[in-house]
Amino acid sequence: MPPLSPLSYQQVRLTGGFWAQRQKINTTVTIPAIYQQFIENEYFKCIHPDWKPGVSRPAHIFYDSDWGKWLEAAAYSLALNPDPDLEAKVEAMIAQLASLQQPDGYLNSHFILVEPEKRWTNLRDWHELYCAGHLIEAAVALFQATGSRSLMDVMIRYVDYIDSIFGREPGKKRGYCGHPEIELALVRLYHATGEPRYLKLSQYFIEERGQQPHYYDQEAWARGDDPKNYWAKTYQYCQAHAPIREQERAVGHAVRAMYLYSGATDIARETGDASLLKALETYFDSTLKQLYLTGGIGPAAHNEGFTADYDLPNESAYAETCAAIALFLWAHRMLNLTGEGKYADVMEQTIYNGILSGISLEGDTFYYENPLAVDRQKRTQQPRSQHRQKWYSCACCPPNVARLIGSMGGYLYAQTDQAIIIHHYAQGEASFTFHGKPVHLSVKTDYPWNGSIHIMLTPEQPAAFNLRLHVPGWCRKYSLQVNGQALATRAQDGYLAIERTWQPGDTLSLDLEMPVDRIYAHPQVCYDRGRVALRRGPVVYCLEGADNPDPVDWISLPRHARLEATYQPDLLGGVMILHGRGARILAPEASGLYTNEEPRYEPCEITAIPFFAWDNRAEGDMRVWINEI
Amino acid sequence: MPPLSPLSYQQVRLTGGFWAQRQKINTTVTIPAIYQQFIENEYFKCIHPDWKPGVSRPAHIFYDSDWGKWLEAAAYSLALNPDPDLEAKVEAMIAQLASLQQPDGYLNSHFILVEPEKRWTNLRDWHELYCAGHLIEAAVALFQATGSRSLMDVMIRYVDYIDSIFGREPGKKRGYCGHPEIELALVRLYHATGEPRYLKLSQYFIEERGQQPHYYDQEAWARGDDPKNYWAKTYQYCQAHAPIREQERAVGHAVRAMYLYSGATDIARETGDASLLKALETYFDSTLKQLYLTGGIGPAAHNEGFTADYDLPNESAYAETCAAIALFLWAHRMLNLTGEGKYADVMEQTIYNGILSGISLEGDTFYYENPLAVDRQKRTQQPRSQHRQKWYSCACCPPNVARLIGSMGGYLYAQTDQAIIIHHYAQGEASFTFHGKPVHLSVKTDYPWNGSIHIMLTPEQPAAFNLRLHVPGWCRKYSLQVNGQALATRAQDGYLAIERTWQPGDTLSLDLEMPVDRIYAHPQVCYDRGRVALRRGPVVYCLEGADNPDPVDWISLPRHARLEATYQPDLLGGVMILHGRGARILAPEASGLYTNEEPRYEPCEITAIPFFAWDNRAEGDMRVWINEI
Repeated sequence: MPPLSPLSYQQVRLTGGFWAQRQKINTTVTIPAIYQQFIENEYFKCIHPDWKPGVSRPAHIFYDSDWGKWLEAAAYSLALNPDPDLEAKVEAMIAQLASLQQPDGYLNSHFILVEPEKRWTNLRDWHELYCAGHLIEAAVALFQATGSRSLMDVMIRYVDYIDSIFGREPGKKRGYCGHPEIELALVRLYHATGEPRYLKLSQYFIEERGQQPHYYDQEAWARGDDPKNYWAKTYQYCQAHAPIREQERAVGHAVRAMYLYSGATDIARETGDASLLKALETYFDSTLKQLYLTGGIGPAAHNEGFTADYDLPNESAYAETCAAIALFLWAHRMLNLTGEGKYADVMEQTIYNGILSGISLEGDTFYYENPLAVDRQKRTQQPRSQHRQKWYSCACCPPNVARLIGSMGGYLYAQTDQAIIIHHYAQGEASFTFHGKPVHLSVKTDYPWNGSIHIMLTPEQPAAFNLRLHVPGWCRKYSLQVNGQALATRAQDGYLAIERTWQPGDTLSLDLEMPVDRIYAHPQVCYDRGRVALRRGPVVYCLEGADNPDPVDWISLPRHARLEATYQPDLLGGVMILHGRGARILAPEASGLYTNEEPRYEPCEITAIPFFAWDNRAEGDMRVWINEI
Repeated sequence: MPPLSPLSYQQVRLTGGFWAQRQKINTTVTIPAIYQQFIENEYFKCIHPDWKPGVSRPAHIFYDSDWGKWLEAAAYSLALNPDPDLEAKVEAMIAQLASLQQPDGYLNSHFILVEPEKRWTNLRDWHELYCAGHLIEAAVALFQATGSRSLMDVMIRYVDYIDSIFGREPGKKRGYCGHPEIELALVRLYHATGEPRYLKLSQYFIEERGQQPHYYDQEAWARGDDPKNYWAKTYQYCQAHAPIREQERAVGHAVRAMYLYSGATDIARETGDASLLKALETYFDSTLKQLYLTGGIGPAAHNEGFTADYDLPNESAYAETCAAIALFLWAHRMLNLTGEGKYADVMEQTIYNGILSGISLEGDTFYYENPLAVDRQKRTQQPRSQHRQKWYSCACCPPNVARLIGSMGGYLYAQTDQAIIIHHYAQGEASFTFHGKPVHLSVKTDYPWNGSIHIMLTPEQPAAFNLRLHVPGWCRKYSLQVNGQALATRAQDGYLAIERTWQPGDTLSLDLEMPVDRIYAHPQVCYDRGRVALRRGPVVYCLEGADNPDPVDWISLPRHARLEATYQPDLLGGVMILHGRGARILAPEASGLYTNEEPRYEPCEITAIPFFAWDNRAEGDMRVWINEI
């Protein structure tokens, strides 16, 4: 299959249901809340030409990226909900940042205001190109959303300067950023501008990474440092231990890995490079062996990243929100490059679970880490903050969630010359241009709470194409009607394909049966042995202290206990809950810690809520993997 | 009941079976092996008047205590197995140490040779009185074993000097050691010399601890340090956060806690102080809530100590060998002060499990930490050394095990005016003096492998006394015969009491039924939920990789699986093993980490060995708590 072209979020309207509600909160609460945090955390003072020591904290090396992600989120919001006040704030922030730009085009608040002598001296650790990447993404998003060239022009000057510094040509530095991100941003800039130099620069960054002699060694020696003193101990941390095709498995810092692989997928797509795609498929399969049920990746705090296959502890899960987002972004690229449904499944697994858990239902507090269990009995060994926070000293996650939710429409649909594809189901409307003719499509569904999806097609005139509908991996039974007539068809590679000449007003009803699934982990995942998780459709559930007898881990679920799903419109913003009869272990009659009395249980009512909705009430235990008896 | 007087190890001969074997290894292998480590680790060079920088490593602040514990172990060995060569080594070490003693009596190799200006400037952290304590214990042990006064005279001079420095009298420092130990040593010295000042000094150290204004605050300020900078953050670490009666629960560094409580128990016994005993009973009950099934205490590495009640993780269990030894020593004191069998039970729980696991069967390698599970699947998160080591940079445990095994006979028996008491069963002979008349007693048993205990009494002339026999807490069914006649009697407070006039040649046969017990942890111990442990008599078992299909944690034990115990004379020096039919989880047929396939099992043979005997073969997994299905 040829690569699929995703439909831009600007061609999609989310008109109700799950995602419209979240986009509304994103625009009305989250984006203003982050702006307020920029004020309170002195971003406006330190990303400012008048800054000097004493005025405020200095700009951190990654503050520009926080601005960039927020500007990108604001762009998506402005495109869908014009707002002169927000637009004025955006332009003021751009102007303030642009006023720092150096005559040669260089632009980084930290390395202009705080440590100017250190420009480009430590690409391994210091995020300059990473920050540039996020600002490039913001520039493209704003240009496409509002037509504003203010950041676009600034960033083109900066990128042209970067292009003059880095590359394999004589006299250039053979560097690349320790934190990938600019690679995928340059491909976006290439698409927005048509300038092939930007694609070439991205490709250079991807291909140069991990080559010998190693740039980070040479750069360290040039600083008078010994590369052996690298704090992270191995270049696996930043995926620079080997060239891109020779890395064998997904390793190191999870966000860096995902952004690198995303950029590399863009390059594989643009160049048709089969060896690169093959390597990326290997890394994706490796990621699947290190993937929490919630779509989280990177179990370890010490490297914010990967450890070993199957090493997925629950209480101490790092599972950074940004890493789940980055996996979503990479899976989207792999999906559109290959058309394989398994990538759409991973997108669902992340978005309905480990990404949304990173933001409160009210939209103004955030998690950086997303454990799969909180157990106050274990807290002494693994203390962690007990609620989402308004901000973090490393605040990458909040604006990352905002930009993702704001652009959610852009991940749902795609097309090729022959086909229109629905990857994900959300209530709303999509406007395609198919062989130059408009094709309008509307979706009605309560997904993810309900597997009934009603689609109406309104091509401007009858149009022959293959309509491809994703059947999620979790779905074992489904049925399809076209214009009220049952159509027997089976999904291949995760998609149903309906080939016909579509008439205005044609309808499809896809019914994905959505029972409560009991999920077991592979025995290699030793942390989940003897435990079961609950999933309904794409939504993973958890037991939370607010609904269940305390402590939560005293609850077991009998193997054949019946669980009822009921929609609760007034609970947690409207969620489907699962309810049933569990068993609560009884303390033994004997005193002391150890007894030969067999464990005894008493029946108890249990209620499971979606994992993403945990910690929106009082503090308490939480657990995805439940003891099974 | 009046306090019991323990029978000295010198009145007890272990003539065969479990403990005689271990004492033989202790004398022939362990004591020489530690001496060799003193050579290899330059103790002889740095505890030497000619030491100066460059000669060798400097004496560490706790090296004197390592010497002290080894000298104490050597004393016990010499008492039972005279050995002129060992005695010469002992006297040479004492002479070398004594040559450092200062004119005022002060004796500490580190603070004489390395940092003389820092004497008594940081009692909180620097172990001077702790080292003195171990040397006092060695001095008493050697004096009692061989009659040698060489160390005794040195230590009396040192203690008299310490007594002139510390106390509540005007002009004295109101300090006490951050690492308790001298308190119990001073009581031993008081018993050996009859000098009441030593008892009073011990009592002072116990009572002054944690009083306000806080000595460690004042001492820190005097050093120009701020007490707020205390690395351990809280005086709970060294049990100096409150006076001895007001500490509420067992906290902080586990070895320090146990040594403090041991010394305080000695003081409570000597003074009859009921308020002190009451506090100690509270701390003991608190320790029972923080006790591993193996008798280990102190789950956390960060403080080598206690965390919260029930916080007993398995893989990361610190459970220092010294802490289990110190608990054994404390429980022995509580037992003889109160006569309550629960203390004898804790002694058994530690000695047959978490203490002996600290030394290899061959006797020349050691564990400092004693986890209850090693799981290579989890190693990436919790790396630890994979075998016992010959030595540690902090080598407190090896000589501590040696002195305990060497004096094991001293923990088995006790007496009062009316009673002779057997706390623990070991093959051998004991010689009491009861109201001035010799009473000889011999025990034949294969304990702990077998619950049959045959006792023969040979008083020099008929003697009326209450013979009290411990019925261990693990034992639910037992029978007793006196001179071949069944005697119906029930244990009270863990002891059977047989009151009669004993004739020479009277025999008792006690039969403690010793089935394989399946043990469950209280649900508060969340780490053991859904798991079962195996215990037979006092011996806790484990599954080890060498005997079982890999990985060990894939094995489950069905609730009613039958387990056979068989003695294997050629395995691991002769152990009882447990054998039965387990179930091994199968990897699911579906690919991927998560599936809705129910877990399936295949039968597998499993073999459990005593926990103390693990890691005497090839590296592999180990697990005390086994999944139960």
